[in-house]
Amino acid sequence: MKNFSFYSPVKVILSDNFKDELEKILNKYKNIALICGKNAAYKTGFVDLLKDTVKESLFIFDEVEENPSINTVIKGGKFVRQNKCDLIVAFGGGSSLDAAKAISAFATNNKGFYELLSVNGLPNPTIPIVAIPTTCGTGSEVNHYAIITDYEKKDKINFAKEECFPKFAILNHEYLNFLNENTLYATIFDAFTHAFEGYLSKRANPFSDMVATQSIKIILENLEKEKLDDSSLKNFLYASTLAGIVILHTGTTLLHALGYYLTNHKSIHHGMANFILLPNYIEMLEHKNVDKYYALKKIFPNMVDILNKYRGMFKEKVDSILNEKELSEMCEYALNKKNAENTLFSMDKKELMSFFGF
Amino acid sequence: MKNFSFYSPVKVILSDNFKDELEKILNKYKNIALICGKNAAYKTGFVDLLKDTVKESLFIFDEVEENPSINTVIKGGKFVRQNKCDLIVAFGGGSSLDAAKAISAFATNNKGFYELLSVNGLPNPTIPIVAIPTTCGTGSEVNHYAIITDYEKKDKINFAKEECFPKFAILNHEYLNFLNENTLYATIFDAFTHAFEGYLSKRANPFSDMVATQSIKIILENLEKEKLDDSSLKNFLYASTLAGIVILHTGTTLLHALGYYLTNHKSIHHGMANFILLPNYIEMLEHKNVDKYYALKKIFPNMVDILNKYRGMFKEKVDSILNEKELSEMCEYALNKKNAENTLFSMDKKELMSFFGF
Ligand SMILES: [Fe+2]
Ligand SMILES: [Fe+2]
Repeated sequence: MKNFSFYSPVKVILSDNFKDELEKILNKYKNIALICGKNAAYKTGFVDLLKDTVKESLFIFDEVEENPSINTVIKGGKFVRQNKCDLIVAFGGGSSLDAAKAISAFATNNKGFYELLSVNGLPNPTIPIVAIPTTCGTGSEVNHYAIITDYEKKDKINFAKEECFPKFAILNHEYLNFLNENTLYATIFDAFTHAFEGYLSKRANPFSDMVATQSIKIILENLEKEKLDDSSLKNFLYASTLAGIVILHTGTTLLHALGYYLTNHKSIHHGMANFILLPNYIEMLEHKNVDKYYALKKIFPNMVDILNKYRGMFKEKVDSILNEKELSEMCEYALNKKNAENTLFSMDKKELMSFFGF
Repeated sequence: MKNFSFYSPVKVILSDNFKDELEKILNKYKNIALICGKNAAYKTGFVDLLKDTVKESLFIFDEVEENPSINTVIKGGKFVRQNKCDLIVAFGGGSSLDAAKAISAFATNNKGFYELLSVNGLPNPTIPIVAIPTTCGTGSEVNHYAIITDYEKKDKINFAKEECFPKFAILNHEYLNFLNENTLYATIFDAFTHAFEGYLSKRANPFSDMVATQSIKIILENLEKEKLDDSSLKNFLYASTLAGIVILHTGTTLLHALGYYLTNHKSIHHGMANFILLPNYIEMLEHKNVDKYYALKKIFPNMVDILNKYRGMFKEKVDSILNEKELSEMCEYALNKKNAENTLFSMDKKELMSFFGF
């Protein structure tokens, strides 16, 4: 056993009595801030449910956009501070949850974005967060990662502070019913790649391997089912949270780094981007004879077959989406990403391009 | 999936560079309190190592006895408070770790034992704890349980406060070399029963089952080895910590409740007591056709055989240790313990006694 460390500080609650569980937590606080986007919190009925549940005051900050900006988290921090909120309810996909984590830091630390980013150990304690994910992909509810976009520099910053872990995450599979099927599966594939890449990360450890294999097992078992029912949704949501615990320990790898390019340049959903690139990544793992990939194949001999059943959802292959120049750019970009460092094999740009037919 | 919740808030560090890891943590604090007993901390050289590592001030409270008393934790609390310590280093077996958790509460909350016990939510934040276990049994380093003895009432109280989780646990297998072989195995069997009973607890959930089966797997694999080497010690310590995470979620069951009687009345080591009673408990599980027991046997078909290889270490069977009156007392006592409520079968006293030949 190599040196490693592990933990999972967020109290995750899976319950069919969603409202009761939320109420139990809210009862201990006075001024509640809801951090969300313009859509999901309303159309799912969550805002009404929250109004019905909060005893004292509710303050709604619904300005979180897809890929939240620095401006949004600074503004959200001011909102929480000025309304003297003592609890943040974060509702939505990765964007809302990530924004809420950064907002919890800026609420009590009135500083510039890059100033607080550079501080080691936040001066003031953050506002506690209850995270309620509405997708089963990012795992953002169980880690402290907060991807914030600097639109001026065209850059994504991970505002990852130990103090920004949510205190609670409540998983309610019913919210998944509001996703269209393609988005639902895209988020499932995002979760799958978190567990898959986590298992194949240089930073993997015995604890993360245990969680990753469990997550993969649940996802594959439920992808194999004929019908997508309530129980599959519950299972996917649980598996996605497990996969979030995995990447808390392992980070992601080259596959995610490549996927970011497709998302940034072709507006392909993050989970879908990873899924499209997965066959190329598996080819690399096989070509490089990565032992741990073969170990995983031994545990899940049908893994690739089960995934391939869903190939029909995304007809395009990478080489039909990108031209040679773009492919070259993608490879260059991915190899320079920090995620790539976790990959179990090394590869130069020329070799990487060869896996896309060049 | 039933409703459940899970987490594991303690950052567990497994490292061959024990001193470096400790130093990294200590560097952030000024006045360090060491909470320990009279023996292990000295004979292992830990006190010297700590003196060598602490930059500012070190205060040693080495008065923790086996089965720590209310008096000890009140006194320890005062010690930490008066010396203005901002970090507690807890070193030792379950007794030292449990005492340190309660001490961290009394240090900042100057109240009577039962007064603070009855409070829901401690008034003042506790002192952070680094837990360093020297046995591989209790799992105390990863939960908030603190078993404190009221010697007047002849009762054990679980001073379990959410605020008393250690912040860090550092696992150093080298300290296990200071245990004699019988004690080492007794603590391993304690860890085994935590995982075993946790898997078979009414409060078991998918997360605790994942951790329990992993813990059992590691313990059995290492019990099967011919030689007890460094790598087995590391593995046992890791598995014991996993088992501690299991009982954080599940509690223990009737087996532990029975074992307490043997420890209280016959001074048999806690882990050994559980191990002596395990065959009787397995008979009960089989007799009651507990599905989950058979599921576990399916995962680990050699489980009982591997354990039985170690039967030679403890020649006595329960009916040669206790007379009929004592057996009756033990059954009465165990069935009234809270742990018994987690057991997957129910049994009255008469039936329970029949499993001990009466
Ligand atoms: Fe992802
Ligand atoms: Fe125990």
